[in-house]
Parts: sequence; C-alpha cells; structure tokens
Amino acid sequence: MGNIEIKDLKDKKYDIATVGEVLVDMISTEYTDGFDCDTYRRFFGGSPANIAMNVKKLGINSTIICCAGSDEMGDFLISKMKMQGLDTSNVKRAYSSTSMVLLNKSQSSPIPIFYRGADYRIVFDESIEDVIRTSKIVHFSTWPISREPSRSAIEKIIEVAKESGTIIGFDPNYHPALWEKGYDGVSYIKGIIKDVDIIKPSEDDAKRLFGEESIDEYIARFLDLGAKLVIMTLGKDGLVASDGKTTIRMDSVADNVMDTTGAGDAFWSGFYAAIVKGYDVKDAIRLGNASSAYKLRYTGAVVDFPSIDRLKDLYEI
Amino acid sequence: MGNIEIKDLKDKKYDIATVGEVLVDMISTEYTDGFDCDTYRRFFGGSPANIAMNVKKLGINSTIICCAGSDEMGDFLISKMKMQGLDTSNVKRAYSSTSMVLLNKSQSSPIPIFYRGADYRIVFDESIEDVIRTSKIVHFSTWPISREPSRSAIEKIIEVAKESGTIIGFDPNYHPALWEKGYDGVSYIKGIIKDVDIIKPSEDDAKRLFGEESIDEYIARFLDLGAKLVIMTLGKDGLVASDGKTTIRMDSVADNVMDTTGAGDAFWSGFYAAIVKGYDVKDAIRLGNASSAYKLRYTGAVVDFPSIDRLKDLYEI
Repeated sequence: MGNIEIKDLKDKKYDIATVGEVLVDMISTEYTDGFDCDTYRRFFGGSPANIAMNVKKLGINSTIICCAGSDEMGDFLISKMKMQGLDTSNVKRAYSSTSMVLLNKSQSSPIPIFYRGADYRIVFDESIEDVIRTSKIVHFSTWPISREPSRSAIEKIIEVAKESGTIIGFDPNYHPALWEKGYDGVSYIKGIIKDVDIIKPSEDDAKRLFGEESIDEYIARFLDLGAKLVIMTLGKDGLVASDGKTTIRMDSVADNVMDTTGAGDAFWSGFYAAIVKGYDVKDAIRLGNASSAYKLRYTGAVVDFPSIDRLKDLYEI
Repeated sequence: MGNIEIKDLKDKKYDIATVGEVLVDMISTEYTDGFDCDTYRRFFGGSPANIAMNVKKLGINSTIICCAGSDEMGDFLISKMKMQGLDTSNVKRAYSSTSMVLLNKSQSSPIPIFYRGADYRIVFDESIEDVIRTSKIVHFSTWPISREPSRSAIEKIIEVAKESGTIIGFDPNYHPALWEKGYDGVSYIKGIIKDVDIIKPSEDDAKRLFGEESIDEYIARFLDLGAKLVIMTLGKDGLVASDGKTTIRMDSVADNVMDTTGAGDAFWSGFYAAIVKGYDVKDAIRLGNASSAYKLRYTGAVVDFPSIDRLKDLYEI
C-alpha cells in the first residue's frame, strides 16, 4: 500500500527535517482538573522536536526547523536539544518570547492555555529551501500553519518538497485556540491534505475536523480530501490505515502503559525511521506501532528508544 | 504646589479608576540570576490592580478597567480581586490567554519575560466612558499604551477625563520589550506627558526615557515635556517633586525593608487616597511616602494597609 518511494533519495543529506513548534510546557506540580495548583514545573516541549530527537535514537539523522525566543527560555530549549544530540543549525531566534503552554496535570484531559510567541515566526528563506531540498522527508504539525509568517513558510516548503521529491508528512492535530479568532482553521487543514503524502490523525483530531462520525467515515473523509495515505491512530484500539485501495487494521501492541505523553510522536518516529531504512509502508506502520508501544512503557515525551532492529525483536516484527 | 482641584468632584461615583494590566506573575521558586530553576509559583500581578486594592484599605473607593483572558488563569485573577473586595464590574474577558510575566526570583534585578495576551484588549466603549466621567481620578500605566487597541482606549480615556474634570495620573514605567518591534515607545510616552496631571517616574524610568542624566535634569526634562506635577521616587534616597514653580525634596521614612515589590504602587495609593480625602499636594506626597514605607515592612505587592489617619500617626504627619 501507499506510493512512498524512498529508494531514489539515498543521496540526500537529511533523513528527515521536522518543522514546527518548540516550546516550554509549564505543567502544574499537583493533579488538578482545573488550575487550582499554584506551582508549575517547566519541561521541554514541541512535537516536531520530539520526533527529530526520537528518530536519531532509532538510527536515522534529522534536523529541526523552528523558532525560539531571544530569551532565557529559548536558551533552555536549545540546550535541551543539544543535550539530545539534535542538530540545531536550523533553529532561529525571534524578537519575541519563547512560546509556552500552561497545562494542568490531569488523569483525564489536560486543559492547555497557549502563550504563542516565537514559535510561528518561521520565515521561509534560502537556508530552509536548502534543508527541504536535501531531506528525504519533511514533517510538520498544525502549529506553524495556524499563524503567519510560518503558514506561508509551510506553503513554500510544500512547493519545494514536491519539486525535489521530498516526502511530506502532516500531523493534523487541530486545536481551535491555536488559530486567530475568525480564521477558519478547519477549512485550511482540509485544503492542505491533498498536498501531503502522509497524514496521521488521531480519533480526536478527526472529530475536531469532521464532527462525530465512525472511523470508516473519517477515513473516507480524509481520502475524499485527497489524502494519499491516512494512518488513523485509535489509542488502545490500535489503528486503521488506508491509501484508498488497501485498508489495514492493526491492534495496539502496548504491554505496559505508564504515560501516554508523546505516544503519537513515537509512532511517527518509528514509522519514518522504517521508511528511511527501506521498509515497505505496511512494515513501517508496524514499526510505528511498536515504537508507540515502547514509549508507553516510560514517562515523558522523549524516551531512550532502541534501534529499529531491537524494536523488531522486541515486538516480533 | 500643583494645581490639583478635587473639591468640586465630591459627587462622583468612583474615587479612582485604574486602567491597565492584570496578569499572572510566574516566579521561580529558587533564587537564580537567570532561569536555571525548573519550578515556578504563580502570583496575582498588575500594578493598576494593586493600586485599586490598596486604596480601598486606605479608605477610598475604586474600580479597575482591565482585561483578563477567557481561561482558568483569568478566573484565578478575578477571584483574587473579588477576595480583596475590589469592584470587578469593569473587568472584561477577551478571546486570548490571560497575560503572564515569567520572572526569576532575584536579589538584584529580576529578568521579565512577557507573555502578552488579554491585557491590552481593552476596547473603549460607553461603559468605560461612563466610569471615567464618574471618577475623581483615573490612573494608567504604560502597559495599555504599548499596544492596540488599549492605546486608542487610553487616548479616548484622556479626552473624556479632560472633558469631565477627572484628574489623570500616569506611571511612565517604560520597558522596551512591552512595545512592538520598531515602534518608538519612548517618543510616544514623551508625547503623552503634556496630557496628564501627575506623573511619577522612578529614577530607572527616567534613565530609560532620557539616558544617563542628573535628577535635576530629569525633573527639568519632564517639565519641559509639559508635566504639571512630577514626583520622582528615588528608592532609599526619598523623592523630589516639582510643579515647575516649587520643588520639594523628601527623605524616605522607611524603617524596615523586607521586600521592595509594589513600593511604587503603595506610594501612588497613599498619594491618591490623600488627594481624595482633601489633603493638599505636599501632604499627599508625604502620605504617599508613608504608604510606601509601610508597604516595605511586609512581603508581597498588596499588604494590609491601615487607614490614612493611622498612617499619619505612625509616621507623624
């Protein structure tokens, strides 16, 4: 399934470039359903950065295109990325505060309060163009498309990726509060789906985009919008993937769920690493599923992933 | 000194309306010169709100015109104001995150990182016009003039205050990071000084506006810009005040300095309360000085002020 051709791209410099938010997650130290807690702890955050760090451990190389603020929180984020060995040569600094998300620690769904600052100040330029041309895969989240100038940067990135045969992965993690009041983010996301190669919505993402429907209806909706490969993750219920011709279902292989933070990023990471290593789409999905299960054993968004080969042994792929 | 005439305004509903920021101060729990600390504690913040709460304890009534976010941090701020008995009928909620300032706890100068959200979404309307017309004094800080739409709201508020004989106090606490890149905030502040009745710069404020000069030169600068009454506070060195004809110097009466947070707001509070109670400007300055000294005995920006009469006894005024 899928029409992903990676074989011809072996001479490219980067296996993957992720584009999007780096930010500080400021999370209440106590469990609370609202914000009754007065103390907060900061953590490194941002899904594109998590993916870029994960895939390195899984054995492929990566870079991140993002924007931190010109402040001490930006220094903190960059030092964390460097500690993980991530290439930070494409991290820019903006005249703005480093973006932050305030969160309550919750056993149900945490409530995010967004403080957008530097994250969306990504301005397309020759250095970004060069990174995209020399990457096998480019991945982006909805954060950069929710605001200008990063929205325009992503549009240019898509153009360049198409010209240069770079595979495009898109995480449609729509959240209304990320978009400016009055801007129809749902329509924008629906419109961009035809331009990407891989989309991995969660059931919640699909519900936010299309309202309450069945899984099969959601898959059909994404395909109707021009998706080439939809991988819909369903938490403990595994996943459904379809390219419009073939549809596969896969159970979760999670054996020990300690913490669900970053499980979706772990899926992307295993999937991308496998694609770059030459696995076919179905096996890459299996390896994404295994990465996600592995991550669930540990607390935190970025865990100490083993190699793809070790993952295959662990989950008998 | 000064030409402040409060006698004819006794029929007005509010003694003072303050206009400006309410926000969450997120302060590191450990002392650090940068941001090496991972845990932070939230506090109620915002100088106009501090003044509105202080003056009530000093025996005059008040209201605050401000804007909180439509989120749980906005709920937190409003509940704190209500707990202090502050009139919150002129607090608006905006489609934006509640503004926040991240600060390191420091024994020298803390480094603020500003997360501006709802605070500057103050839009002038009939209800604000009505509050200004029916207030004896209106006070604003530089936060609302640093961004639109609150900058335009302040311009309209000044117009209405002049029409209706409302005394205007302005805190020129300029900070470059509050202003949009490229916008000349210093010129804007200099231009607005002629339109207000009272300005109370600190020495740091003056240095930020005019560069390194002497105290007397600073006073002359403010007067040249059209200031009617300048009260320049000098920390432990007391203050200098001038209306261009008479200049007075006053020593600090602080006896026990526990914490300097909010000392400037305490000065404003004592000064305004005294003006409303009918004291002349010189005595009002003395009472501002006493309020500041009283506040310095305690930790936090808002302390349990005694009545004006008790302050007079305590500081032998």
